[in-house]
Amino acid sequence: MKKQELIDLIRRKKSFLCVGLDSDITKIPPHLLKEEDPVFAFNKEIIDATIDLAVAYKPNLAFYESRGLDGWKSLEKTIQYLRTFDKEVFTIADAKRGDIGNTSRQYARAFFETLNFDAVTVAPYMGKDSITPFLGYEGKWVILLVLTSNEGASDFQLIQPRLPSTLDKLGIRVMYSYRKLYEQVIIKSFEWADDQAMMFVVGATKAEMLQGIRKLAPDHFLLVPGVGAQGGSLEAVAEHGMTESCGLLVNASRSILFASKGTDFAEKARHEASMLRDEMELMLKKYGVI
Amino acid sequence: MKKQELIDLIRRKKSFLCVGLDSDITKIPPHLLKEEDPVFAFNKEIIDATIDLAVAYKPNLAFYESRGLDGWKSLEKTIQYLRTFDKEVFTIADAKRGDIGNTSRQYARAFFETLNFDAVTVAPYMGKDSITPFLGYEGKWVILLVLTSNEGASDFQLIQPRLPSTLDKLGIRVMYSYRKLYEQVIIKSFEWADDQAMMFVVGATKAEMLQGIRKLAPDHFLLVPGVGAQGGSLEAVAEHGMTESCGLLVNASRSILFASKGTDFAEKARHEASMLRDEMELMLKKYGVI
Repeated sequence: MKKQELIDLIRRKKSFLCVGLDSDITKIPPHLLKEEDPVFAFNKEIIDATIDLAVAYKPNLAFYESRGLDGWKSLEKTIQYLRTFDKEVFTIADAKRGDIGNTSRQYARAFFETLNFDAVTVAPYMGKDSITPFLGYEGKWVILLVLTSNEGASDFQLIQPRLPSTLDKLGIRVMYSYRKLYEQVIIKSFEWADDQAMMFVVGATKAEMLQGIRKLAPDHFLLVPGVGAQGGSLEAVAEHGMTESCGLLVNASRSILFASKGTDFAEKARHEASMLRDEMELMLKKYGVI
Repeated sequence: MKKQELIDLIRRKKSFLCVGLDSDITKIPPHLLKEEDPVFAFNKEIIDATIDLAVAYKPNLAFYESRGLDGWKSLEKTIQYLRTFDKEVFTIADAKRGDIGNTSRQYARAFFETLNFDAVTVAPYMGKDSITPFLGYEGKWVILLVLTSNEGASDFQLIQPRLPSTLDKLGIRVMYSYRKLYEQVIIKSFEWADDQAMMFVVGATKAEMLQGIRKLAPDHFLLVPGVGAQGGSLEAVAEHGMTESCGLLVNASRSILFASKGTDFAEKARHEASMLRDEMELMLKKYGVI
């Protein structure tokens, strides 16, 4: 899906909601366990209940891999089902992959060819040749980890050299190396792709840093996890991160998926998604996107 | 497998060779394509031909995921076959995973419970809570990406603040933040696990940096890719990285797997592995490990 198509989709659905399919088999409603593929049955009902409210779906690979072959089958069925909605959904493989060039090429094949997702999350630690094999697929996206929503984010992502007193003599090129690691990741990525093929993961729990990120990357879409169970605020994210063409995909997983463990789970999931979408519509209006 | 068992295995086989099972279906000998599971058939012959020469096997997940369900089946059969050799092989899932805590827990389950590998490679970018869920499995290992063998390694791993002139007044705690990123990853990891549960990935193409890493981590095992197709030197790796209990697992993938595309591929693979092992035995003797 191209960037303009995604923006059109957001305006049409008046939503920038991404539903994270972290479909933990130990947390889905027990009555589904009698189904042949309980996780796919769960995903299908969640998708059907939220398809008019969400613009994107993001299966989290870990929850499928942990179940081995059965999990991989559930994943394949889920992406195939999502594909039947064609341009009505943007699909993200939350895989956080990244390896040397010949290996990243295989991961790109896995997610863009075999499974046919629109986007894949990629970790930046290994640099250029771990990222570029995911680029160059027409209409496909790399979503690069920049500033994540978890506690451990501060271990490395926030590493920042001290500014020496002579800094102002040194000019802009040297200043790059005094930026925090996550900012260096953003700036370096501009050498590999632009906002038509790359997005950034920025955790909602770090909303106060969104302003700085928007200065660096005014036109990039940001995938923002951490609203809901992780405690991030949707309002703060929109205030600091929204652009005139939205520029945000905000993900919620557990708060939607596991709103109920009963037979009414899909209805309750719809209710949660609906509240988020309503709030999103207000923000899209407030910031002039619609 | 515990650290002492791995050391015993290395002394017994007089080898610290890890065979990387980057089993690309487009590169395996064509005569295998008629098999029901060509990749497993290939892996089995490679394993049988090298089992007395190698201490470890490392399936590279990307080459399996890229084939979807079929690939996952080949992977499961391969690890099940490796498991039949029990304490004669150390098994590594080269997966380079890492995500927020609840997700890393699922990846840990995938590789340590569902598939039952001894070790998994993990990317450090997301910090503590992305790593710790992999720890605490008795006899299982995290192999943390530190300094990789690819060109892009220099994009972020080598980031180093300039030393201000006042440094010597500031003492050891501040010095930490003037280390290169990959060194900060090593030092930070000591808070999470010791050398009985953690190893580091250090590319053979960066052998000159091994000395510095050995100063920081004198007792940790290092997994060293990049010998062979990527151009690293085994001799330089041993010179700078070997300890009195070896402390090295050196990986070779393509140079062994694809030594021949004919029906003699296993024999040729054995020949390549054998030359590496012979060289390894000399080094183990030279540095007093055996």
